[in-house]
Amino acid sequence: MLRARAALMMSTLVAVLAVAPACSHMQARHGKPTATPAPELRGSGDLALVIERASGSVQIIDTTRKRSLARIEGFGDLSHAHAVFSRDARYAFVFGRDGGLTRVDLLTQTITHRIIQAGNSIGGSISQDGKIIAAQNYSPGGIKLFDSETLAELADIPAQGADGSPRSKVVGLADLPGNRFVGALFEAGEIWVVDAKNPRAPQVERFTGVGRQPYDGLATRNGRYFLAGLFGEDGIALLDTWSKPMQVQRILPGYGRGEAPLPVYKMPHLRGWAMAERDILLPAIGRHEVLLADNRSFAESGRVPVRGQPVFVMVQPGGQRAFVNFAFPDNDHVQVIDIPSRKVVADLSPGKAVLHMEFSPRGEEVWMSARDSNEITVYDTATLKPIARLPAQSPSGIFMSARAHQMGM
Amino acid sequence: MLRARAALMMSTLVAVLAVAPACSHMQARHGKPTATPAPELRGSGDLALVIERASGSVQIIDTTRKRSLARIEGFGDLSHAHAVFSRDARYAFVFGRDGGLTRVDLLTQTITHRIIQAGNSIGGSISQDGKIIAAQNYSPGGIKLFDSETLAELADIPAQGADGSPRSKVVGLADLPGNRFVGALFEAGEIWVVDAKNPRAPQVERFTGVGRQPYDGLATRNGRYFLAGLFGEDGIALLDTWSKPMQVQRILPGYGRGEAPLPVYKMPHLRGWAMAERDILLPAIGRHEVLLADNRSFAESGRVPVRGQPVFVMVQPGGQRAFVNFAFPDNDHVQVIDIPSRKVVADLSPGKAVLHMEFSPRGEEVWMSARDSNEITVYDTATLKPIARLPAQSPSGIFMSARAHQMGM
Repeated sequence: MLRARAALMMSTLVAVLAVAPACSHMQARHGKPTATPAPELRGSGDLALVIERASGSVQIIDTTRKRSLARIEGFGDLSHAHAVFSRDARYAFVFGRDGGLTRVDLLTQTITHRIIQAGNSIGGSISQDGKIIAAQNYSPGGIKLFDSETLAELADIPAQGADGSPRSKVVGLADLPGNRFVGALFEAGEIWVVDAKNPRAPQVERFTGVGRQPYDGLATRNGRYFLAGLFGEDGIALLDTWSKPMQVQRILPGYGRGEAPLPVYKMPHLRGWAMAERDILLPAIGRHEVLLADNRSFAESGRVPVRGQPVFVMVQPGGQRAFVNFAFPDNDHVQVIDIPSRKVVADLSPGKAVLHMEFSPRGEEVWMSARDSNEITVYDTATLKPIARLPAQSPSGIFMSARAHQMGM
Repeated sequence: MLRARAALMMSTLVAVLAVAPACSHMQARHGKPTATPAPELRGSGDLALVIERASGSVQIIDTTRKRSLARIEGFGDLSHAHAVFSRDARYAFVFGRDGGLTRVDLLTQTITHRIIQAGNSIGGSISQDGKIIAAQNYSPGGIKLFDSETLAELADIPAQGADGSPRSKVVGLADLPGNRFVGALFEAGEIWVVDAKNPRAPQVERFTGVGRQPYDGLATRNGRYFLAGLFGEDGIALLDTWSKPMQVQRILPGYGRGEAPLPVYKMPHLRGWAMAERDILLPAIGRHEVLLADNRSFAESGRVPVRGQPVFVMVQPGGQRAFVNFAFPDNDHVQVIDIPSRKVVADLSPGKAVLHMEFSPRGEEVWMSARDSNEITVYDTATLKPIARLPAQSPSGIFMSARAHQMGM
């Protein structure tokens, strides 16, 4: 069963989709800096970068006026992608599936640097001081550190488990205070804390035997905890970085115990703002449930039945609601959970194949990407009504530049 | 006693200080837009605005390179001032003591709009959607709403207490989700929630009898609670905006009961990030203590003795520490509290008359203004060592543009 699940995960992660037609109203820009007109003077705090997964392009969006500023091509394979932002919110660093790491200037709307740093990558992070980019790689499994100004490589850390197994895939990489990073090793079942205060000679503290097949991770916004979801068994591994020494414990053990596992159509993503006032909300892998755990004791505090297998569970900033999207065949829906009552209060239909959601930083809007509708839909979180739609080619991740100022991204 | 305290408060708030010498290395710009060279293309996410209280000027600072980009003059009386930011982090709105409201473009480094909207003002806020500026005024007491693009007045709400008393001073104004604002009426002892969904016809929900002389307020980052410190009696009024109907309760009653009140040399400020993982930290008015309350039950959970009367108590993002500055005669010191052990672990000397502290958004640095040293000092929060000093004329408030994305500011 574990093997079957793992195979399914890998296949969903490398799925390739048909290229959608280009949107005619936008100016397409290619990767190399060119002699374009002087860019508009503008603040960079309300920009978003949207991944167009099938065409290897991104759009830069003005989230205030809700219009696309540019499409930029040349990002390689973005069938799975992640982005982080420089501390001035001017540059985005895009991690592509093909190991590409691309630095894009949101103001000139050009690619300033691009390297292929691995064979297969899953994302990355940026250090607290903004100087170091960390990539988490599947092939060859490991973590690489880069200078955020030049993308020059600073360190290459092979993800070799203490058990001597082959290099592991690295998942869930996130930043921690003190220019550290935290992530997990899928095959080796380890959590690593990488201290990059000296980025050319990073120090790794490893926690072994944390559980079978950690598949993704989440660092809490206060920089204290790292949670690694386990694919090979029920439960979550929890690292408390404030305990001295740092310790890993198991939480939510056996949440699916005694129940027949369901086939997993898409791996849930743990990254996102899933910490509510009193609870942490987590997608139950393979189950039609959102799990709640008390965010002090980490004891299970509830389950909310939802319509399908949850992928992202995200808590609205300034709100009492969580938004949940789903794996196939329920991926045309987004459900809204009222956290105090633990009930689904709305079922939205933002389009076909909803892959990602991003809240505006203060929570008044949520932006959703519908891959197979070739559209981004913006909802007013107060009314739960759509207020804008923007065309996009097979959109997946939506990343707002305010992420520059958040930990755990 | 109450009257004496109030008089002291008012006098400290209008104190005027000698003008410090100008810093020679900076370009001074005046209020009116002028034909300056094309401004540097740059992200606006790492900018700070520093109030120079005696000269009515501000500096724009690049917090990454730690250098001043410009001084801008013409802001009127900044002996008490506050600033908020547009959602694109390009514009700051500066509320001056003289009722001035000034919109400054951080990129062109010019004043774009300036009005005198009241006789005596204490600060203000910006709505969740960024479209409305709200000013809290002492004279005439009330709240005014303005269009953030034009500074055109949208509404004027006199702060008339339900008891028929003269108009009150408005304190502690902060934004709440749903384009609402919350604040308190000093003389009338009321908390108001102003719903500005229709900003030309705002709706006020008032809570009367919340306690004597609320002097400042704090809205929690999740948009749920508003705390109003009471000057006329011991305790804090707590509004829970998620309870239905919204309710006010008293917390920390009588924290100074039975103890002789100390003369108050400067009113503490509640605004700041004072919510730690499990506790809210508050300056005890007139006492040499920081109060801790459990952030779920709001029961007192501890007190930390400190060296003087605390003014700001701010929790480091991503950290386990709070930084505290003090009223005269201890205002040359900043103490650092380790929150888990509730002990003072460091006593810093950033300069003479430390008026304000601002953390970088991800917490790796804290910037402190020393008015009488005419200097801003930047500390590394990991080492607690100074890493940069910047000259400034009688600096007070330091406001980083990442505030654009935070609630309760």
